[in-house]
Amino acid sequence: MAGIGDDCAILRIPAGHEALVTTDLSLEGIHFRREWHSPEVVGHRCLTRGLSDIAAMGGEPIAAFLSLALPRNLPQGWVDQFLKGLLKLAETFHVTLAGGDTAESRAGILADIVVVGSVPRGQAIRRSGARPGDRIYVTGRLGGSAATLKLLLSGRKLRPADFQGHFHPLPRVEAGRILRKKRIASAMIDISDGLSTDLAHICEESGVGAEVLAEAIPLASIGKPACAVDLNFALHGGEDYELLFTAPRSKRVPSRIAGVPITQIGQIRRGKHISILDPMAVRSELRPQGWEHFRLRQ
Amino acid sequence: MAGIGDDCAILRIPAGHEALVTTDLSLEGIHFRREWHSPEVVGHRCLTRGLSDIAAMGGEPIAAFLSLALPRNLPQGWVDQFLKGLLKLAETFHVTLAGGDTAESRAGILADIVVVGSVPRGQAIRRSGARPGDRIYVTGRLGGSAATLKLLLSGRKLRPADFQGHFHPLPRVEAGRILRKKRIASAMIDISDGLSTDLAHICEESGVGAEVLAEAIPLASIGKPACAVDLNFALHGGEDYELLFTAPRSKRVPSRIAGVPITQIGQIRRGKHISILDPMAVRSELRPQGWEHFRLRQ
Repeated sequence: MAGIGDDCAILRIPAGHEALVTTDLSLEGIHFRREWHSPEVVGHRCLTRGLSDIAAMGGEPIAAFLSLALPRNLPQGWVDQFLKGLLKLAETFHVTLAGGDTAESRAGILADIVVVGSVPRGQAIRRSGARPGDRIYVTGRLGGSAATLKLLLSGRKLRPADFQGHFHPLPRVEAGRILRKKRIASAMIDISDGLSTDLAHICEESGVGAEVLAEAIPLASIGKPACAVDLNFALHGGEDYELLFTAPRSKRVPSRIAGVPITQIGQIRRGKHISILDPMAVRSELRPQGWEHFRLRQ
Repeated sequence: MAGIGDDCAILRIPAGHEALVTTDLSLEGIHFRREWHSPEVVGHRCLTRGLSDIAAMGGEPIAAFLSLALPRNLPQGWVDQFLKGLLKLAETFHVTLAGGDTAESRAGILADIVVVGSVPRGQAIRRSGARPGDRIYVTGRLGGSAATLKLLLSGRKLRPADFQGHFHPLPRVEAGRILRKKRIASAMIDISDGLSTDLAHICEESGVGAEVLAEAIPLASIGKPACAVDLNFALHGGEDYELLFTAPRSKRVPSRIAGVPITQIGQIRRGKHISILDPMAVRSELRPQGWEHFRLRQ
């Protein structure tokens, strides 16, 4: 790492590795609201989005770049706390904030995060590697972030500590790396837009269909006392930042990886249909409804 | 290049090279106005900012990433023409648009451009390499972009073809690459904030002072019939995207590089002072006044 105070940052990509690059916008009113999300939470979630994309390729994050457009009247304290949240997460994953840009926004806060990582040449886990017969897995539990958002939208005041999946989601970098190193996953994506949408991305890129068992989907528990979320949040709610991956039947997939539970939720099928089986074995189409339904601006 | 349709783009950095990364925001009302700048011009200028940073390190651009926040009511035609302008320049420099993100903006258009490039390990031209006795050079001619902006601010209607330095600035990628390959430049920066500000960056990072000859500064000619700009635009006006570099006395510096004229404008001195000598050899301090004076929002 060099180049701070230069026109570009200079990054050393390890020998035999390829570079990974991902960019994600976070906008006030779309991805967060100042009355719900503390600046520290906004900073944390902003970087999580980028790190989660690196995790989804089985990569190792190296550096982050932050472009901020800020309203003229925004208190400096907000920016300081935002950076504090972002830098704390960066430190956890040994990522350097290596550059960026700032400008004045005419309305609302906008942050664009770029994360650069690396992966041994040819070993990035793509979305296109799923094959009929592969099993479908997810890390962690789903639906917690969207269910929390629903509570916020209904006007509930929440204690962030009881809803960490929404306020402080952790990107699954270590799990992604192990899935790549042990050559377990045939295809992978992070669940940022919701299971139904992100599974559809894998199926489309791989040219396959899928069958999901409703009963098998691990539901997040939120609040205190903790309560499991409705299946619809797990199927269609975004911003869980868990990993969705496929693995050939022949692979032994551990029940935990890097401390995170791994759950089989279905199988890849020939064809193009993505279906879901309810507990009575009734089959219906699983349409990608994704995150759009849970946007802040409803 | 791979990874389109994946969570990250996968970039191959040539063996023995380091990666260069730069990010630049372009905001409506700050960097452009829709009534003055066609969408194609905005797209061109947006990418120029990133490519110029790669040029300033002596690097080779590889890929660009574009994050766009757009007002809901923006016509699709605007976006199409913006991309057309950006992609045409990308093609000229063999750069792939490899990813990005889009979101809805509450006010105004915002584009964040990321350019990734590469440079042989340890050979990036930094801002910190200038030494007392080095000569100071610029590519091309200065002040054209800011002088054009002044005309726009005064309400003049301009024909873009007569003011190409403002509407279609060309990043000096080839000149930067040659200056690095031939090991001519000891320090380099692109003139995006104005000569006085960017020279101050080199002096600060190198721990040196400088002396500039007012008479030596190559003034841009703009309009039809073409007319040389005032010295103040060349000293303090931004967005010329020429290169400012230093070279040891022992180096032979050609009068043209990659078709671009090269002009010696002064020398690096010991100490911290940056001074300018007028045609009567009267010395005054050259304070960094830079781009802020020429912002759209005056």
